[in-house]
Amino acid sequence: MPYDVIIVGSGAAGLSAGIYAGRYLMKTLVIRGNFGGETATAGQIWNYPGAPGMDGYDLMKNFEKQAKDAGAEVIDGKVTGATKDGHCYNVTVGEKTYHAKTLIFAQGAERRHLGLPNEENLTSKGVHYCVTCDGPVYTGKTIAMVGGGDASIKGIIDLAKYAEKIYFIVRTPALTRPEPVNLEDFGKLGDKVETLFETEVEELVGESKLEKIVLSKEFKGSNELVVDGVFVEIGAKPDVVVPISLGVILDKLGYIGVNNLMETNVPGIFAAGDTVNHFGPFKQTITASALGAVAATSAYNYVKKLKS
Amino acid sequence: MPYDVIIVGSGAAGLSAGIYAGRYLMKTLVIRGNFGGETATAGQIWNYPGAPGMDGYDLMKNFEKQAKDAGAEVIDGKVTGATKDGHCYNVTVGEKTYHAKTLIFAQGAERRHLGLPNEENLTSKGVHYCVTCDGPVYTGKTIAMVGGGDASIKGIIDLAKYAEKIYFIVRTPALTRPEPVNLEDFGKLGDKVETLFETEVEELVGESKLEKIVLSKEFKGSNELVVDGVFVEIGAKPDVVVPISLGVILDKLGYIGVNNLMETNVPGIFAAGDTVNHFGPFKQTITASALGAVAATSAYNYVKKLKS
Repeated sequence: MPYDVIIVGSGAAGLSAGIYAGRYLMKTLVIRGNFGGETATAGQIWNYPGAPGMDGYDLMKNFEKQAKDAGAEVIDGKVTGATKDGHCYNVTVGEKTYHAKTLIFAQGAERRHLGLPNEENLTSKGVHYCVTCDGPVYTGKTIAMVGGGDASIKGIIDLAKYAEKIYFIVRTPALTRPEPVNLEDFGKLGDKVETLFETEVEELVGESKLEKIVLSKEFKGSNELVVDGVFVEIGAKPDVVVPISLGVILDKLGYIGVNNLMETNVPGIFAAGDTVNHFGPFKQTITASALGAVAATSAYNYVKKLKS
Repeated sequence: MPYDVIIVGSGAAGLSAGIYAGRYLMKTLVIRGNFGGETATAGQIWNYPGAPGMDGYDLMKNFEKQAKDAGAEVIDGKVTGATKDGHCYNVTVGEKTYHAKTLIFAQGAERRHLGLPNEENLTSKGVHYCVTCDGPVYTGKTIAMVGGGDASIKGIIDLAKYAEKIYFIVRTPALTRPEPVNLEDFGKLGDKVETLFETEVEELVGESKLEKIVLSKEFKGSNELVVDGVFVEIGAKPDVVVPISLGVILDKLGYIGVNNLMETNVPGIFAAGDTVNHFGPFKQTITASALGAVAATSAYNYVKKLKS
């Protein structure tokens, strides 16, 4: 028996889709790649309506429990491929293949990297993409944050609890779309934070561990800046390799193209969350959750039609 | 000083907009008409991600507290009129007038009720207006659906997964505009569903809980029908009088017309929740909350532009 729906991804969108699909009594499989998605790494969340101040990881644990309680099966794994097979889809996860009548892609977006030669080598050895995960390691240390948007500002506010000194490296001449409440908190950090505008990181120096960074512009008489760690918060790009292989068309910005019902151009394939750009740059736990619910509902309506 | 935003309505959409607007440090006024909207009357809610099993009223109380904590002001009242005034809007509530740079209409849609004396009293105590919300409670039970249009047929198909027996009470001599695929599925339900045409519900009997209903026409020798619950699916209509007076254009179905950013055709006027038809008939707490957050974000961006 094929699944009615396989949901690829287990962030807010995927788990919300799991809750709805389960409640529709669909045979539902959620494939956890990166548990909890962006929400799980966001630290305390104040803007998800109904759960103020909850840690994002705990909130996602609650979503997952709710999806399981509704009947969704959840497995760990990375989807490496998918093919069409009659009225169904085959989804490959490691050595195994799963069959489903519909697919919901909710695998989110990957954090953008700086694209520097030494970057992969130094990841988790001084170069980090998740403040919540790795911030506490830098208690009493000197670090740099590369960014400029609201996520990087929030990141600095969190890092300031641990770090002794933070250099904020911003490519643009001003901050981009800071949320006022975050900007206000940011302003209170005083000398602890120094912002270097119109500056980029050109090199990550270190062998087994990051030792210093090279800047595109002099700062205090030198292009070199000695730091214990660098956090990178420069956005994300959606993971679309598998959907593209199934003939799914992207939108102009490279996200999965969907209509208001989260239907892609391929019948039976839906998408939700940070893989789509439905509300533009506004990507939040609440919007991802709503889109996941919409995708599950559209998948449900599609399966109903297949049967008739 | 005018408000940055006045939010008309205090259901999930309005309060979520209040949370987001407050966090954007906007001077925010929420005008509570019907506190908590549809959610507050839905009883226990199992499908809002992150708060399973919470009573809808309590969930809306949490939303309201979160909006107030974020800085939103909340007043009681009914908006009876609004006019444009330079770059601002005047909003009339009883004897008072409030001024704001932007408006978010989130006053919802009214589910049509049967109009029976005991109805309000028994709402969520055996009388329901939302199959998705309350259907699973009736697993193994006997229920009635009052309707005749496509939404009620869809409702019965969903309810049939849970209920043991369903009486379909239809005022007209035939079903109204059923979608063929739904009609086909409906036909497969067999004995589980009995349709009573040209029949109306005349009385809802019960004190703390619905016990039975009284029909306008005899059925199996009696006008009384013992059921555990009644679902009413006789339509809803959005409240659009004030937005229309401001020049807001409706969509084909009579909802407020908006784009993906919840912008209406009138600059500075936004809408969210059940007053819009963004996701079609799928109208849930989670979707309303997301659209409210989007509307607040668009209002915030609009006010920022006014300043610059």
